[in-house]
Amino acid sequence: MKSPVRLALLGCGTVGAEVVRLLNEQSADLAARIGAPLEIAGIAVRRLGRDRGDLPVDPALFTTDALGLIKRDDVDVVVEVVGGIEPARGWLVEALRAGKSVVTANKALLAEDGGALHDAAVEGGGDLYYEASVAGAIPLLRPLRESLHGDRITRVTGIVNGTTNFILSAMHATGAGFAEALEEATELGYAEADPTADVEGFDAAAKAAILASLAFHSRVGAADVHREGITEVTAADMASAKAMGCTIKLLCIAARGTDAQGRETVSVRVHPAMIPLTHPLASVGDAFNAVFVEADAAGQLMFYGRGAGGAPTASAVLGDVVAVARNRLAGVRSASESAYAALPVRPMGEALTRYHISLDVADRPGVLEAVAGVFARHDVSIATVRQGPSGGGNGDAVLVIVTHVAPDAALAATVSELRGLDIVRSVASVLRVEGGL
Amino acid sequence: MKSPVRLALLGCGTVGAEVVRLLNEQSADLAARIGAPLEIAGIAVRRLGRDRGDLPVDPALFTTDALGLIKRDDVDVVVEVVGGIEPARGWLVEALRAGKSVVTANKALLAEDGGALHDAAVEGGGDLYYEASVAGAIPLLRPLRESLHGDRITRVTGIVNGTTNFILSAMHATGAGFAEALEEATELGYAEADPTADVEGFDAAAKAAILASLAFHSRVGAADVHREGITEVTAADMASAKAMGCTIKLLCIAARGTDAQGRETVSVRVHPAMIPLTHPLASVGDAFNAVFVEADAAGQLMFYGRGAGGAPTASAVLGDVVAVARNRLAGVRSASESAYAALPVRPMGEALTRYHISLDVADRPGVLEAVAGVFARHDVSIATVRQGPSGGGNGDAVLVIVTHVAPDAALAATVSELRGLDIVRSVASVLRVEGGL
Repeated sequence: MKSPVRLALLGCGTVGAEVVRLLNEQSADLAARIGAPLEIAGIAVRRLGRDRGDLPVDPALFTTDALGLIKRDDVDVVVEVVGGIEPARGWLVEALRAGKSVVTANKALLAEDGGALHDAAVEGGGDLYYEASVAGAIPLLRPLRESLHGDRITRVTGIVNGTTNFILSAMHATGAGFAEALEEATELGYAEADPTADVEGFDAAAKAAILASLAFHSRVGAADVHREGITEVTAADMASAKAMGCTIKLLCIAARGTDAQGRETVSVRVHPAMIPLTHPLASVGDAFNAVFVEADAAGQLMFYGRGAGGAPTASAVLGDVVAVARNRLAGVRSASESAYAALPVRPMGEALTRYHISLDVADRPGVLEAVAGVFARHDVSIATVRQGPSGGGNGDAVLVIVTHVAPDAALAATVSELRGLDIVRSVASVLRVEGGL
Repeated sequence: MKSPVRLALLGCGTVGAEVVRLLNEQSADLAARIGAPLEIAGIAVRRLGRDRGDLPVDPALFTTDALGLIKRDDVDVVVEVVGGIEPARGWLVEALRAGKSVVTANKALLAEDGGALHDAAVEGGGDLYYEASVAGAIPLLRPLRESLHGDRITRVTGIVNGTTNFILSAMHATGAGFAEALEEATELGYAEADPTADVEGFDAAAKAAILASLAFHSRVGAADVHREGITEVTAADMASAKAMGCTIKLLCIAARGTDAQGRETVSVRVHPAMIPLTHPLASVGDAFNAVFVEADAAGQLMFYGRGAGGAPTASAVLGDVVAVARNRLAGVRSASESAYAALPVRPMGEALTRYHISLDVADRPGVLEAVAGVFARHDVSIATVRQGPSGGGNGDAVLVIVTHVAPDAALAATVSELRGLDIVRSVASVLRVEGGL
C-alpha cells in the first residue's frame, strides 16, 4: 500500500460533514479501490469551536486559514464544498496553480468562471472534477465527459432543480397555486427561506451552463443561458397542461442547432414547459432530478436520482476524490476541459420552440380568422386548435392553440400582437411545449 | 497532434459496420477529443468478398487472419464485436498479453471467463473496457466502476434484455400470451429466429454477472447466477399482476446480504417478477433497458436507454475506444479489475425474496386455516390475503397471497406443499415480487 493521499476539506456544513463521515466509514474500501489510504490533512471552516456533533474527526484538524491549508506541501487534493463565487474562486485557482487536484460541488463558480479553473488546472497539472455540481448523486458529468465522447450529443433536457420540481409536482398533484406549493416546500425543508435562486431558475441556469459546456465541447457560462423561473406558473396553467395530457416542469435545455448562415450553434435555456405525461421526464416526481440526453448513435438516454442532500452530494464528491487520488498515484491527469468545438451561443429569440397558447376571445364570426392571421403574419405554423365555450358564461369562447416549432422571437411577437387584438379578451396562458406532443 | 492510435477491428457485422461508419463520420471530433487521430489498421472477418454496402473503408483492410492482425506491432487497440466464447477468448487474451488495449462488447465471454481477461490485461499493462457488454448505449459500467466507488452499492435491479422486455410489455399492453407476443417480437425483428438466449434468461444472466462483479468488487460468473426465463409467464400471471397494480418484468437482481454466519454475501439472480406500476422500472417499455442502482449515500439512481442495436452499441464501443486511446497516449492504464471484496455468492435458496401466490381452493370452512398453516410451518410470514369467488362458477374460491420477505427455499417449499394439499385445486400463479408493494 502506498503512502496516503491527503485531502484539504474546505467547508464542513451538511455536505462536508457527510464527506467526513463517509471517509471514515468507508476508509478500508476506499483504500482498496485507490491503492492508498485517504487522509484528511485539514478542514477549513469559517469559525472554530462550533458544535459539530459526533463528527469522527480530530478537532485539531479544523482551521480558519483556508489559504494556508491549501498551500501546505502535504496536501494533494482540495475538496471544496463551500459554494459561492468568492472566496472559493481564489482558493481553487490557487490550489490548481500549485498543482493540487480539486474536487468541487460549486456549480455557481463553474458556471460563472469555469474557464479560469480549467486554465489553472492545465497550468498546475492537477485534475478538476465536479460531478456533484449538477444533479447531486447522479453520475452524469463523467458519462458526458467520458462515456459519450465517441458520440455526438444533439440535445440535453434536464430537471436539475429539486425545489422547483417538488413545487411543480405538488401543483400537478393537488391543483395548488405556486404560492401555496412553495409554502409546503418550505415547511418540508425542500425550499430555503430565500427561495430566489431556485424558483427564479438561477440554480438551474448554472447547471445548464455546465451541462452545455460538457455536451457540446464549448465554453458556456451562466450569462449565456436564457432564464425564466416558475413564479408565474399558475394553477390555471397546470390545469391547461393536464387537459392536454401534459404536466409542467422547469426544464434546462441545451440543444445543437444551425443558424441562418449554416454555422453550428448551441442554445441554452431554462424555463417552465409543458411535457407529455408519457415522456420519461414527466414521471420524475418530488425533489428527484433527471437528465435526458439525445445523441446521434446512442439514441435516448436518461439519468435519474437524487439531486441534492448531504449524503447524495457527498457520494458524488467521494467518487471524484477516488478518481483524482488514483490519477495522482499514477502520475497522470484526466482529460482537460474539452472546448475545441467553441460553438457560438444562439440568442433565445432564435431558439426553436413551440408554444401552447390559451386565449379568451369574443365568440363571433371572424375571430378565428383574425387570430390565425396573427400567427401567419409572424410565419408561425399552427399544429392544433381547440375551441370551446368559456367557463365565464359570458358568451365568450376559449381558443387553445399549439404551434409547430418556430423561432422564439416570432412566437413572442405573435403573443404580443394577440394581446393587442380587440377580440382577444385575455391571454390566459402561454407555455412552451417540449418533448413532442 | 500526435501520431495515430491504430485499431484492429474484430468482426464487421451490424455493430462493427456501425463502428466503422462512426469512426469515419466523427474522425475530426474524435481526434480532437483524443489528441491524436484514430486509424483502422485492419478488420478481421470470417470471409472476404462479402458485399458490405457502402462501408467507407479501404477493402484492402479486410483479413481473415484475426490472430495475425492482433499481433501486428502497429496495432494499439483491439476492438472485438464478434461475440461468443471461442475464438474470441483466445484472441483477446493474446491481445492483452501483448500489451494491446481491448474494447469488447462480449458479455458472454466476460461472464464466462472475465477473470482470465482481467489477468491478461494486468500482465500486458493494457486496458480492458466493455461498456457495450451491458445495456448497450447506456453509460452504466463506467459509472459503477468509477463514479460510485466512493459509495457502497447495496442492490442493482435491472431490465437488461430488450427482447424479453418487448415481449412482456406487449403482454401487459394487449393481454396476449407468451407465444403470441414472441411471434410479434420475431416479426418486428426484436427476437432472433432462435430466441433461447433471450427468453430463457441466458443473456440477462451474463449481464447480471458483469454488473454484480462491478457493483460488489467480487468475481461473479454466469454460473453463479440463478436463472429463470419468461417462457412460463402466462396471460393469467400478467392479469394477476395488473390486478395488484403491478406489471411483470424480467429482472436481473444483484444484492448484498448477510448469511447465517454474519458474513457479507452477494446474491445474483435473473427471473420474472411483479413490480408495482409506480416503480421507475415499470414504465421502461418496448426494447429499452434500464438499471436501478441503490447505494448507501447516493440513494436511488436509474440509468435508462437503448440496450441493443448497431448504433447504440457502437456508441458505447467508441466511448471506450476514446478512453483507452487517451490512456495509451498518456502512457497509463485505467484501474484494474476491482475484486478485493471477494464476496461469496449466496445460493438462490438463501436469497431473500417475496412471493405472490394465487390459489384455486375449495370454498369451505377450515381452508384458510389449512393454507395459512403451510406458510407458518415454513416460517413464511403473510403480508396480504385476498379471497374471492373463483371465475369457474363451481363454488370454488380464489386466494391471492403476498408474502413478506423470506428465503427463497422456504417459499418454494411452501408452494410445493400447497400443491399437495387436498383442498387446493390448483396453484394458478406463482411470481416473485420486487420493488416494494
